[in-house]
Amino acid sequence: MKYLTLIISLIFTQISFAQNDSTFIRKIYDEALEKGHAYQNLHSLCKDVGARLTGSAEADMAVKWGEKLLNSYGFDKVYLQEISIPHWERGTTEAGWIEDANGKVHKLNILALGGSIHTDGLINAEVVVFENLDALKKAAPSAVKDKIVFLNDAFDQKMIQTFQAYGACYPQRGEGAKEAGNLGAKAIVIRSLASSTDQHPHTGSMHYDDTKKKIPAAAISTMDADLLSNWLKKGKVTLSMEMDCKLLLNKTSYNVIAEMNGKDDQVITWGGHLDSWDVGEGAHDDGAGIVHSIEALRILKSLGYKPQHKLRCVLFMNEENGNMGGSTYAKWCKSNKEIHLAAIESDRGGFLPTGFDVRGSNEQLAFVQGFKDLLYDFELFKFDQGYSGVDIGPLMEEYPEMLQLGMTINSQLYFNYHHSEADVFEAVNKRELELGAAAMAAMIYLLDSHL
Amino acid sequence: MKYLTLIISLIFTQISFAQNDSTFIRKIYDEALEKGHAYQNLHSLCKDVGARLTGSAEADMAVKWGEKLLNSYGFDKVYLQEISIPHWERGTTEAGWIEDANGKVHKLNILALGGSIHTDGLINAEVVVFENLDALKKAAPSAVKDKIVFLNDAFDQKMIQTFQAYGACYPQRGEGAKEAGNLGAKAIVIRSLASSTDQHPHTGSMHYDDTKKKIPAAAISTMDADLLSNWLKKGKVTLSMEMDCKLLLNKTSYNVIAEMNGKDDQVITWGGHLDSWDVGEGAHDDGAGIVHSIEALRILKSLGYKPQHKLRCVLFMNEENGNMGGSTYAKWCKSNKEIHLAAIESDRGGFLPTGFDVRGSNEQLAFVQGFKDLLYDFELFKFDQGYSGVDIGPLMEEYPEMLQLGMTINSQLYFNYHHSEADVFEAVNKRELELGAAAMAAMIYLLDSHL
Repeated sequence: MKYLTLIISLIFTQISFAQNDSTFIRKIYDEALEKGHAYQNLHSLCKDVGARLTGSAEADMAVKWGEKLLNSYGFDKVYLQEISIPHWERGTTEAGWIEDANGKVHKLNILALGGSIHTDGLINAEVVVFENLDALKKAAPSAVKDKIVFLNDAFDQKMIQTFQAYGACYPQRGEGAKEAGNLGAKAIVIRSLASSTDQHPHTGSMHYDDTKKKIPAAAISTMDADLLSNWLKKGKVTLSMEMDCKLLLNKTSYNVIAEMNGKDDQVITWGGHLDSWDVGEGAHDDGAGIVHSIEALRILKSLGYKPQHKLRCVLFMNEENGNMGGSTYAKWCKSNKEIHLAAIESDRGGFLPTGFDVRGSNEQLAFVQGFKDLLYDFELFKFDQGYSGVDIGPLMEEYPEMLQLGMTINSQLYFNYHHSEADVFEAVNKRELELGAAAMAAMIYLLDSHL
Repeated sequence: MKYLTLIISLIFTQISFAQNDSTFIRKIYDEALEKGHAYQNLHSLCKDVGARLTGSAEADMAVKWGEKLLNSYGFDKVYLQEISIPHWERGTTEAGWIEDANGKVHKLNILALGGSIHTDGLINAEVVVFENLDALKKAAPSAVKDKIVFLNDAFDQKMIQTFQAYGACYPQRGEGAKEAGNLGAKAIVIRSLASSTDQHPHTGSMHYDDTKKKIPAAAISTMDADLLSNWLKKGKVTLSMEMDCKLLLNKTSYNVIAEMNGKDDQVITWGGHLDSWDVGEGAHDDGAGIVHSIEALRILKSLGYKPQHKLRCVLFMNEENGNMGGSTYAKWCKSNKEIHLAAIESDRGGFLPTGFDVRGSNEQLAFVQGFKDLLYDFELFKFDQGYSGVDIGPLMEEYPEMLQLGMTINSQLYFNYHHSEADVFEAVNKRELELGAAAMAAMIYLLDSHL
């Protein structure tokens, strides 16, 4: 009912506030596009820090980088929040080859999935292919035992939003090793979860069943997946691979948090994740979300905005392989008996923003859709029920009635870069990144003013 | 009133046709995204033909390329339409240098504007800078005489749609040489009409007053414009330049046209332009529009669609420097007493399509907006009054009441590539290009079915 009342009051006060809101949002965009820091901050995160896998030296440097940058802007409060994190390392050896039906050897572009065990030296076995995880689940153990399983589930190009295609293929990466291990396979390689046909393998998280046999798991590029698939149609293929990745002891790391005080202590949280995978530079995933989030707070402060509520920007650690940052933050908020009004996440890249997905009730959706006209001229068109984000997900468990938003971003190119060596600063466009920061700032302003 | 009736009938028949339309549009997208030819056709146009300035050998080859490709698809009719075209050539020498206030020489990235006269050997003169064309217009002749004028009007980064920023800066390219020549300048260089700060100069059309003195005109890159501007703040700067471009005699060239017959002979026209500037590969401008247009017709035919009206895809020649293709086509239609229902143009690049600008009455706009819900899931959101396109512009003069549409496309990156050596095939994303072709096909289908 709270939102219904808000919507009604929004309609009645539309004429009076529309002008102010519209003027202020215009100022936000002017600041982002003319005097923005987002692009230079992303450059610094990508080039001065680099790829920053949870537990790595680079991730520790990223925490320092974030704390230092947030302090430089003079926000009301900047602090670190301690979290316990997993620590997995790729190691130095990662190589794969296939021997085709004619005995010719082909080198593969191979990349261990995050969390995989090592191979313990060079291993090799005959390859058995399945079109997807469901097909593997139906296989007889005798068809899989002592072989290397190859899951070749490709993105469905017909899906307009590539996140849908990613979601449909995700099980082969997340659950493939567990299923193949249960059936006695020696190792598993999967087709990279990517929209494009190219030479980059794409890593990402995976899960083992700790009570069962674990097997090494790696991604191969979509071009190598096509190569392997074609040779398998012609006869027997043997795959040799070596990876010396390993899981180490848990470590301590930090979420990095900045706040602007409001007239009350009710909290609006937003953020992205500071960690990335260890290849490329984590530019789109999620350097963009980090600089969107920092820039949104900087813009509001630079415009002299006086918040109604406590505005809190969180640079979450460990989204990629554990989400300890998100879950620790949510529990901490609840244990501090904080009241939370809303949360926003940016974790879909630095491309053109298109709107916001709303995770909440129909009344909450209608409330957000009330801002549609104000944002149309800034080419934000999309305000639908949808997903918010991994980092702010656990907040929903502690505050089931809160409003959550995920910034929607043109998804067409995202999975060409995601979790691969291609995800570098140069793949991000300055104006698109700045528009993302402005969209975040505008939505934070609107929520803060009208919630 | 015709459109009012259409809108009313559209509302009443919405339930019955929505299902059919929705199913057919889904098929269009499936064909474009799974079995599309747009990307391979763009590759061929960019790599097998290359940049194709009106009058060049490459433009002649592009006509053959287009005719051959359209014939290969077995459309009802493929033919060439003769036009008389201007013929300007860049020549082989193009170079510029500045000598700064300390006597140090800097090489400039310089590119003659299309239609410029040559310099007749190396020329040099002191540089005088103006912030934009209006400032130059107010200058005293004594401040300009025998100098090289530098117009340094930069894109207004605050403008959300970059086409607006381009439009605001356009006068310095289109009219700068005329104004500077009138004031006695020796030559003119302009800051490239570009969103980004980089080393590529961007060419484009310009106009002389044939009754007055003509002076050479060139663009310099935005980085060189900043360099020159900074040195001018420190003291006197001399610019040396040579260009041997020239205007030749008019030639004959062709629009390339393909048709599918309908139940009647009323025409729906769409297209892009086959010519490009002579740098880069004309990939976004307007190779993308050409392959969007061809692919739209191919998709409709491949799905067995039986048109209501005559569907005509036109690959226009000479959009960039004369628009003889567009104006000849419009006159030809009128002289043949054809009835024209609508025209659509794609000439805003191969990036993500966002909707359609409507050039027409409010009733025509409402009619097109009636398709909004059908296109929402395909992420086409924008249906506003706006501009259609240069090629189909002259049709409006012959058929002032016709409906015209311009496909709107994410404009954020367009002017990083436009008219420069950066506009190559590799700058176009496969999925975004395919979505553009599908959007064109869907709109042609909707117009054909409901007009």
